[in-house]
Amino acid sequence: MGEEVLKPTKEKFDEWYNEIVEKADLCDKRYPIKGMNVWKPYGWKLMQNIDKLIREEMERTNHQEVCFPLLIPESFFKKEEEHIKGFSSEVYWVTHAGKNELEERLLLRPTSETALYPLFSLWIRSHADLPLKTFQIVNTFRYETKMTKAFIRVREIHFFEAHTCHESFEDAEKQIREDLEIAKRFFRKLCIPFIISKRPDWDKFAGAFYSIGLDVLMPSMKTLQVGSIHQYKQNFSIPFEIKFEGKDGKHYYCHQTTYGMSERVLGAIIGIHGDERGLKIPSSIAPIKVVIIPIIFKGWEEKILEECKKLKKEIEEIGLTCFLDARDKTPGSKFYDWELKGVPLRVEVGPKDLENKMITISLRDGIKKKIKRDEIEKLKDELKEYDERIYKKAEEFLHKNIHVLKEICKDAEGIVELPWCGKEECGKEMEERMDMKSLGIPLPEKECNEKCAICSDKATTWLRLARTY
Amino acid sequence: MGEEVLKPTKEKFDEWYNEIVEKADLCDKRYPIKGMNVWKPYGWKLMQNIDKLIREEMERTNHQEVCFPLLIPESFFKKEEEHIKGFSSEVYWVTHAGKNELEERLLLRPTSETALYPLFSLWIRSHADLPLKTFQIVNTFRYETKMTKAFIRVREIHFFEAHTCHESFEDAEKQIREDLEIAKRFFRKLCIPFIISKRPDWDKFAGAFYSIGLDVLMPSMKTLQVGSIHQYKQNFSIPFEIKFEGKDGKHYYCHQTTYGMSERVLGAIIGIHGDERGLKIPSSIAPIKVVIIPIIFKGWEEKILEECKKLKKEIEEIGLTCFLDARDKTPGSKFYDWELKGVPLRVEVGPKDLENKMITISLRDGIKKKIKRDEIEKLKDELKEYDERIYKKAEEFLHKNIHVLKEICKDAEGIVELPWCGKEECGKEMEERMDMKSLGIPLPEKECNEKCAICSDKATTWLRLARTY
Repeated sequence: MGEEVLKPTKEKFDEWYNEIVEKADLCDKRYPIKGMNVWKPYGWKLMQNIDKLIREEMERTNHQEVCFPLLIPESFFKKEEEHIKGFSSEVYWVTHAGKNELEERLLLRPTSETALYPLFSLWIRSHADLPLKTFQIVNTFRYETKMTKAFIRVREIHFFEAHTCHESFEDAEKQIREDLEIAKRFFRKLCIPFIISKRPDWDKFAGAFYSIGLDVLMPSMKTLQVGSIHQYKQNFSIPFEIKFEGKDGKHYYCHQTTYGMSERVLGAIIGIHGDERGLKIPSSIAPIKVVIIPIIFKGWEEKILEECKKLKKEIEEIGLTCFLDARDKTPGSKFYDWELKGVPLRVEVGPKDLENKMITISLRDGIKKKIKRDEIEKLKDELKEYDERIYKKAEEFLHKNIHVLKEICKDAEGIVELPWCGKEECGKEMEERMDMKSLGIPLPEKECNEKCAICSDKATTWLRLARTY
Repeated sequence: MGEEVLKPTKEKFDEWYNEIVEKADLCDKRYPIKGMNVWKPYGWKLMQNIDKLIREEMERTNHQEVCFPLLIPESFFKKEEEHIKGFSSEVYWVTHAGKNELEERLLLRPTSETALYPLFSLWIRSHADLPLKTFQIVNTFRYETKMTKAFIRVREIHFFEAHTCHESFEDAEKQIREDLEIAKRFFRKLCIPFIISKRPDWDKFAGAFYSIGLDVLMPSMKTLQVGSIHQYKQNFSIPFEIKFEGKDGKHYYCHQTTYGMSERVLGAIIGIHGDERGLKIPSSIAPIKVVIIPIIFKGWEEKILEECKKLKKEIEEIGLTCFLDARDKTPGSKFYDWELKGVPLRVEVGPKDLENKMITISLRDGIKKKIKRDEIEKLKDELKEYDERIYKKAEEFLHKNIHVLKEICKDAEGIVELPWCGKEECGKEMEERMDMKSLGIPLPEKECNEKCAICSDKATTWLRLARTY
């Protein structure tokens, strides 16, 4: 039945994760540069299917896809002061081409503000050009000094970034509300529950007016940021001179926002849904939604195989991708392979099924049943219910591990919310005493009638903390 | 009716091309690094649709998609001697990360042999792992010193590369035949006729045993290489130690091939089909296949618009992407915009059409007719015929400009074929005296019963020459 797989318990999670990403054939970590992994066909297909969901959301909200160059001249990168401060220790520098030293150093984009905005200043002339809503899906680079981890902390990042320009701060705020709606629909399709927090000022994106983080809770009890939304106000439009002529004929600087996600979304799917048998892929992105395993007995070979082929065709006709595993292996070892890869639905066809005009189905989360051969339309409902179940399970896990406390409690795990006066020094002391990082203020904001867990002054809000990736 | 557009005549072609790529909103050349352009939404959509056709062909032929890191350590790049010689003058070097100098320099891939092959040597163990057929679509980088040209000669290249490994030379040869079949189907869908030539030894890919070039003829009478297929034999598998255990239990080095194409395919589409009014997009990749223009007269506004909306819905229902241009502009200026962008089919709906239950259609190549309102299924045939016409037109142009000569003829234009004895010195003298570059030996090979155009020895074959991009 194949090798044993570790269980993703709290203690063993990281070990399990590091192993499963290679066993399930998502990536190969043996590339000769640390933190730059090879996307294998199955992993890349999953990522492309995630990208497809993003593109659907972008189209629905009238964002247009662009693709900007990877390299950014140093002088452009330096235009926004906070931005360069935040990123300068982690960028890769191109200094030579062929045998020549370049006149100006070029950097590999860690994110693309400083690549896009010089062009935005040319594209935008008048209020009629606004809002400008664009996005791109590209490779970005960060020279990570921390321990790398497949999809979660890598040096070449498969990255989604939406960039928008608006007439006013209020229009940009509206965009941020739209981004949150996008995130809700997107993560719901992936069966991933998440929490939204307004990052504390000391942890906002380099150059942002404020930042919102979208975090998930992994079985290790550490949170993973899977998305971020930033209000830039005019912090970039002023140095990059992105101006428009208003209806009154006067010139104004744009207000800007960004929304970013990355291959971490895949990391979250692996971690949150996976179990000791492998991945559990939500049906929305499963490269193979249904796998058919013939259960062959002597004398039945041809009949069973023929029936499986017919079944495959019918399943494809109702719009489900289907793979017939006719390899010369035992059914058990096939079950093992497809569970490892997280295929949502397995269909077995044996002599008894054939006689009874039934098929045996197993959902990847353990539900097993027989359905009538002439009711295969029902497979769609089964997948829907499977998605619902894995979402609910993840949601329960998340909510069970959010702890609203009144005071410091050192043995708290998961996500903690403490009453907070709003002072940076108190926030930082919470971080230190909880041995956690602050995620920020819970959104939507919640009333607080407590005293700050550090200074006992009136707490105006809550501070959310967790151990993080 | 908008500004005048240049005609893509032989003399004015390059000027026309440089202008049209920006006017039709394909790219923006004002990015602050020369030769690195910004893909605008319409251009990027076209490129993505081209990629979709490639992926269909890859799936059909059982190639699996991977995605390898961009950066390659210098020591790996240097493993194949000819390869490094060929590329070392045009690679970008990353030497620093953050504030540190890297221990080993990294280069931005100009092509990915030296990135993939260290992993191939881990993936391949036995003959059962062969053939290995993979591909990726990624950004690659070449430090061009020649004049850059959008999509045709750029420094960041949107690149497709298939890499395969085989048991024997003959299996690799079979792969090359499959690649040629892929190319035929692929370019046919783009209505692009091309010629196939086995490149002369002095112009093969750095590290290849032999190279095949796929070339098209542009209106400037210069050819453009739009694809290349390489037989590597064991030139890479030996230095990269890509070995397998054969059925006999002994170990052998693999035989390898590659097949590459790039955004030049888009360049070819622009150049070959375009005219003085703009692009002509083949229907297979048109982001908008049908545009509807309401022809509005006073008193008819609502009726016409309502009919256009209904029509749009019906056109979408038969599977054609359709845009209803309801902007507040004259029909003429709308015609201008969509002709510029090369939309294959325009539908006009005016009061007369409404009364007669007809619609007026114009194909982008000038054919105009009326069809019955209840026969819109016919739009599909119209698009098919349009594709056929633009293909035929391009094919005629290509064949008209292939000249089979017996001797040097200095005023020959387009593509020339001269009898050749096979000696490099004669080939190079032909290049010099014709002021052309050799494309190579025509494939499939043609008999030759002439004397070499240079030395008058018996010509064993033909040498094809042209001015090239």
